[in-house]
Amino acid sequence: MLIIGERINSSRESIAQAIKAKNSSFIQLEAKKQAEAGADYIDVNAGTFLNEEAEYLSWLVEVVQEAVDKPLCIDTSNEEALGAALKVCRRKPLVNSITAEEQRYNSFLPSVKKYECSIIALCIDNSGIPPSVGSRLEVANQLINSLSADKFALQDIYIDPVVQPIGTDSKSGILALETIKRVKDQHPDAQTILGLNNISFGLPNRRQLNRAFMVMAIQAGVDAAILDPCDEKLMTFITTAKTLLGQDEFCVNYIKAYRAGKLSKDA
Amino acid sequence: MLIIGERINSSRESIAQAIKAKNSSFIQLEAKKQAEAGADYIDVNAGTFLNEEAEYLSWLVEVVQEAVDKPLCIDTSNEEALGAALKVCRRKPLVNSITAEEQRYNSFLPSVKKYECSIIALCIDNSGIPPSVGSRLEVANQLINSLSADKFALQDIYIDPVVQPIGTDSKSGILALETIKRVKDQHPDAQTILGLNNISFGLPNRRQLNRAFMVMAIQAGVDAAILDPCDEKLMTFITTAKTLLGQDEFCVNYIKAYRAGKLSKDA
Repeated sequence: MLIIGERINSSRESIAQAIKAKNSSFIQLEAKKQAEAGADYIDVNAGTFLNEEAEYLSWLVEVVQEAVDKPLCIDTSNEEALGAALKVCRRKPLVNSITAEEQRYNSFLPSVKKYECSIIALCIDNSGIPPSVGSRLEVANQLINSLSADKFALQDIYIDPVVQPIGTDSKSGILALETIKRVKDQHPDAQTILGLNNISFGLPNRRQLNRAFMVMAIQAGVDAAILDPCDEKLMTFITTAKTLLGQDEFCVNYIKAYRAGKLSKDA
Repeated sequence: MLIIGERINSSRESIAQAIKAKNSSFIQLEAKKQAEAGADYIDVNAGTFLNEEAEYLSWLVEVVQEAVDKPLCIDTSNEEALGAALKVCRRKPLVNSITAEEQRYNSFLPSVKKYECSIIALCIDNSGIPPSVGSRLEVANQLINSLSADKFALQDIYIDPVVQPIGTDSKSGILALETIKRVKDQHPDAQTILGLNNISFGLPNRRQLNRAFMVMAIQAGVDAAILDPCDEKLMTFITTAKTLLGQDEFCVNYIKAYRAGKLSKDA
């Protein structure tokens, strides 16, 4: 399973300050920490800066690329910022994200195609977030069909079921898990992804909820997750879940992680 | 989900000593601790005493019943011990366990029927533990059919898929989970159960593996588990899993457990 490190996001106060001050060493430390903890992609987001997002996001891309040898996840809803960031990406990036909303889809597509990116596609259409597994699956299918018609390989399409907080709708967890399962059943070669943290929004002991939900998502067959790889217990649960689900022959990875001191002692 | 507290088992040295010394207060403390931690049934096992099992098991039943107001899970493979223990049970017990092996089935059935027990039925037949989901499911069906013919209600039949250590077969986790799912699909009114700890046998950080596997089993739909309810983190994961799977409207149980200090702070 691919891990997209979420920590370089301007909604975090320390990151916003580092961006404003162009404190590249702070950003680079965050990038390195995540890469060392096991991130496969580093997400970069400067979305809280309305007027400077394009400038700041492309600065983040350059600064992070200097520090780590990992591809980036370009996290923006702004077409101009997307173009500026992709222009300076060295490795094939993952774009976070398009939706099935006509305007968002059409405005993002030219840049995503031009730079041959992989793409996260959120199950949202012009009517918003579909309320049932069936309707969410319809939007997923629509996205896969449109992107396939636009010449994206299935392996480059990451369907995100959209995880809503369990605190506001007690069915939102199973809705996301079931959507992941059904997308994988119908399109084994397409990818699925989730943004983990949203599940626990508004509740106490958020990290605990996130860890259990991550185990469930792996069991449901998710291919990638946006999360904090510096949460050692979360990473321990990911290693453990893969071992328990038969993705680790002879438990080699589990035992290797244990011997390297990478399994949290009492997660 | 029903929780069967496993701690009163003579394979634990401290329990064996307490049994031999007829130290009822030690046993009763173990029973109370488990009931307070959330056990719905208290398992009692004196299986390491070959000649005295019947005497010791019925002593355990009487001692535990004095201490807690919970039904018991009578854990034995010895027909005589079973009869002696059931004779002194006050509340409807759960018998742990029969199998589809002819001799075991036929020798246990009379007592189990006479005392109108619920029954744990292991997916094992004369050829041993079936190696695939399909063959394990066949044994489950055979057990359900035989027990139904013997007038057991489906709600009293607890099918145990038999959890084998992940350390010796990396597919044993998915085999057990898939068997649980398929039994529930085919017989929604029958119960499923698992003995949790066996999954982690022989590996380091066993409790961590147990916690993640418990989350997976709840996601697969298991109805009961034999485990250590005094593992606070494990119990936190059980509460959390039920909340994440939509079994806790408005997260009432989760928040109540949090406020009562019953959620481990950093599980």
